[in-house]
Amino acid sequence: MDYPIGVIDSGVGGLTVARELMRQLPKENLIYVGDTLRCPYGPRPEEEVVEYTWDMVNFLLEKNIKMLVIACNTATAFTLEELKQKLDIPVVGVIEPGARAAIKTTKTNHIGVLGTEGTIRSNAYRKALKNINSELEIEGLACPTFAPMVEKGVISGQLAHQVVKEALKPLENWKQMDTLILGCTHYPLIKSVIEEVVGDQVDVINSGDETAREISAILGFKRKLYEGTRPVSHQFYATGDTHLFMKIANMWLQRPVTEVGRIKFGQSHSI
Amino acid sequence: MDYPIGVIDSGVGGLTVARELMRQLPKENLIYVGDTLRCPYGPRPEEEVVEYTWDMVNFLLEKNIKMLVIACNTATAFTLEELKQKLDIPVVGVIEPGARAAIKTTKTNHIGVLGTEGTIRSNAYRKALKNINSELEIEGLACPTFAPMVEKGVISGQLAHQVVKEALKPLENWKQMDTLILGCTHYPLIKSVIEEVVGDQVDVINSGDETAREISAILGFKRKLYEGTRPVSHQFYATGDTHLFMKIANMWLQRPVTEVGRIKFGQSHSI
Repeated sequence: MDYPIGVIDSGVGGLTVARELMRQLPKENLIYVGDTLRCPYGPRPEEEVVEYTWDMVNFLLEKNIKMLVIACNTATAFTLEELKQKLDIPVVGVIEPGARAAIKTTKTNHIGVLGTEGTIRSNAYRKALKNINSELEIEGLACPTFAPMVEKGVISGQLAHQVVKEALKPLENWKQMDTLILGCTHYPLIKSVIEEVVGDQVDVINSGDETAREISAILGFKRKLYEGTRPVSHQFYATGDTHLFMKIANMWLQRPVTEVGRIKFGQSHSI
Repeated sequence: MDYPIGVIDSGVGGLTVARELMRQLPKENLIYVGDTLRCPYGPRPEEEVVEYTWDMVNFLLEKNIKMLVIACNTATAFTLEELKQKLDIPVVGVIEPGARAAIKTTKTNHIGVLGTEGTIRSNAYRKALKNINSELEIEGLACPTFAPMVEKGVISGQLAHQVVKEALKPLENWKQMDTLILGCTHYPLIKSVIEEVVGDQVDVINSGDETAREISAILGFKRKLYEGTRPVSHQFYATGDTHLFMKIANMWLQRPVTEVGRIKFGQSHSI
């Protein structure tokens, strides 16, 4: 089916999901929208996240997408159910794929979740996990320093290590935890730093990778994968500085992004 | 949604899928049907596999299953498309989940597939893989000695090692392969032997685990997971010796199976 997959995110974090989608489904066209002007969504109240998300969704619906991917944990936590009900295309968020992969991985049934304040406050991972297996033990930790650090390009080295080590101190008390979900699409960029800090005993789950895997499963299940031979073509849009977006996209996607469209939604509410 | 998931297999191999389903979806009820009398399906012609598979499907449809899992690679290869078209419940096979997991895993884009003669002859893995990424290099190898060996309970030790080593000799020529799909639901029981033989450089993909993961994804996506608190209850049926089936099920599922119903379909055609 030759319609694009729409991917929305509060900013650039969702590019980690897009990268995996391009790798796992190399024939599919993507349209990516990053609300970089009003990013981050993590600290915003629910109604703002819902409003902003709909702006992106309405933009994409006019482009005939065959599927919507909410590549932002905060937006998934607050809008997935509503979007699933109201849209007549498949809608996939990043929370349930991460939860399911953690359930597949854990042997101790103790799972940790790292995320923004909004995601952790929403208890969305806890609900998704308990929904499937009520006997799981779940611990959540908000890491408000991570996404801004990653946006600044600090993704390795001593400073990143220090910030992560400091933030993850509470994990020392999660003795039985053997699986840790990266519940924010920025965190895969510091996955190796996080793995270094938590050690070999803990499997670190990248919700973005898992989401790409489930998108592939759902499109395959629905027989909506593109099966032709036209060359791929991806489109990128941002609400903020498009040059900065292009620079980050080139770096993160490891492929040339030569055009980023600027789109304008309503004013940003101050955080 | 409180209806059971139906699982069909040519025999006992699909119990490896059922085991993973029970682990990853511990609230769901399963009904398992193993056509042990007419097993193996691997060497049979397509029309017989189709006929036998429909016998099991019709039996399960009367039990109001909410989803059908074809936990047999040979049956998936020959009946998935037809069943997807004709049934109004979701139908999942074991081939595409394994293919997708391999695509997620491979870095060299060279993937190997082990399976029965029927599965390898059908080219079903090749089609599923190429459908998603036409640049993949794929090698297939029929291992007709593995399933009978596993059915006899030989799953470790020197004999198993010798049989596997002998069968996998052609893999020495697949230099770039970094991912190997176990394309038969019996093979997970000798996964550690296979891993020993192929070495650390190759990731071995268990299609059964991946199928359980996708079933979870599809039921979750369709909001058809059971969310209540009733105790689980699984049912087992076999067409052959029910005592033998019970013995194997107890061993493989690592949980007590105290009742196995005997069902009778048509005569087995000789192989």
